[in-house]
Amino acid sequence: MIYKGPSTNKTATRQTSDRPAKKNGQIIYGMRPVMEALESGVQIDKVMLQTGLSGVLFSDLKRKLQETNVPFQFVPVEKLNHITPNNHQGVVATISPIKYQSFESVVTRLQEEQKIPLIVLLDHVTDVRNMGAIARTVECVGADAIVVPAHGSAQVNEDAIKTSSGALLRIPVCREENLKTVILLAKQMGIQVCAATEKASESYVNVDFKLPTLLIMGAEDTGISNELLKLATVRAKLPIAGEVQSLNVSVAAGVFLYEALRQRTV
Amino acid sequence: MIYKGPSTNKTATRQTSDRPAKKNGQIIYGMRPVMEALESGVQIDKVMLQTGLSGVLFSDLKRKLQETNVPFQFVPVEKLNHITPNNHQGVVATISPIKYQSFESVVTRLQEEQKIPLIVLLDHVTDVRNMGAIARTVECVGADAIVVPAHGSAQVNEDAIKTSSGALLRIPVCREENLKTVILLAKQMGIQVCAATEKASESYVNVDFKLPTLLIMGAEDTGISNELLKLATVRAKLPIAGEVQSLNVSVAAGVFLYEALRQRTV
Repeated sequence: MIYKGPSTNKTATRQTSDRPAKKNGQIIYGMRPVMEALESGVQIDKVMLQTGLSGVLFSDLKRKLQETNVPFQFVPVEKLNHITPNNHQGVVATISPIKYQSFESVVTRLQEEQKIPLIVLLDHVTDVRNMGAIARTVECVGADAIVVPAHGSAQVNEDAIKTSSGALLRIPVCREENLKTVILLAKQMGIQVCAATEKASESYVNVDFKLPTLLIMGAEDTGISNELLKLATVRAKLPIAGEVQSLNVSVAAGVFLYEALRQRTV
Repeated sequence: MIYKGPSTNKTATRQTSDRPAKKNGQIIYGMRPVMEALESGVQIDKVMLQTGLSGVLFSDLKRKLQETNVPFQFVPVEKLNHITPNNHQGVVATISPIKYQSFESVVTRLQEEQKIPLIVLLDHVTDVRNMGAIARTVECVGADAIVVPAHGSAQVNEDAIKTSSGALLRIPVCREENLKTVILLAKQMGIQVCAATEKASESYVNVDFKLPTLLIMGAEDTGISNELLKLATVRAKLPIAGEVQSLNVSVAAGVFLYEALRQRTV
């Protein structure tokens, strides 16, 4: 199904299509429909803009994208034509299958409910299957949410949702523009920030997971960025034997999260 | 590179090819070269036989395949032609990138070294990435081996090796015809057999992993087969909250294995 927002743009609204939407979610196309979707708070995954686009409407759209922290990228017109045969006016947005929440609102709600937060922050995990498996584990251990960056992360698409066994549709997912801000906010709100990193001297079993915790898991290739690592209140590693340098990130997240659950239920 | 065993079959040996071998490993083709490879102990992953093949040589080959527990399947001739343009005589074998060991020899060696075995048996895990991630974790925790069935399991191919970060090339892998026999042998050799299953009442933290242990992880869809489940000496589960029925198998294996490591190093 292709979602078309209310629009005054005759060209864009006149046309309909029986072609199936992109595999990874629904789309909105046309300058004004996308603008209106942004204004009405529709959850947009990303917007593809035709290379070389200009004009007043385009400038408005670009400003709006920046204001709302929606990722966008410039692509050749052929790519847009491939996605929809209709008059896309150089603008195609993919709608997110999930509704994002803000980290602050999630933590505030947990505090109101007098729960001890256990939240996982994924620092640019790029593999959808890893993201899906981590979300599945987050739900399994009864953790509260995952936080992903707005840019440079695995998309929360249908493959991720499938790998998560649907967990991504049920747990709160926070897509945040600036992970550093999230960490500073967490610390301000009394949440310990635990970085899972082989650069730590402390073992994960020595972390006190009974405390409110934001657990940072790093990217598959480079691990946690130095900027975030410096901000962590505690750094912990999984002991490693053998030649393998590190575990798969979803496995590592699982071990950390089950240790947290073990401590909290003992 | 295409490996050609020594052969008296003129047709098959005369021809060479510059075409790259199949992505997932080297191949051997031709009735006699494959037979000789089987006899000389070359590690063969599986053999593809042309549908409708018959004759004395073929009967010999089929018997040899059964004796050596090498998986084989019948395929249309077009499939074989696609793999190699050469005279394959209806027989193409893919060589395993790793050298399998027998479960019994691995355990015997561990006992001689006075080590306490920690071995993971994968009961028909079919996803190469799951198998790879588990092998990676097995090496990370310093466990001793993985056991896979000869039939109906993920192939130990290049994708699995890549996902394992090469661990599959370093840890012992036992490919066994009959998993039931492996379990009975383990029990005979004084190894507890722990089934990781949500059908258990006991939590995984209550298992005594300081004992010699064979840990059974089940297939992605159906879990551990009832036949093997009945033979286990202990059944243990990971506590699950939320609507998700189960964890990803590589995550679950990671949690079990790190609990074993935790107990063994405390």
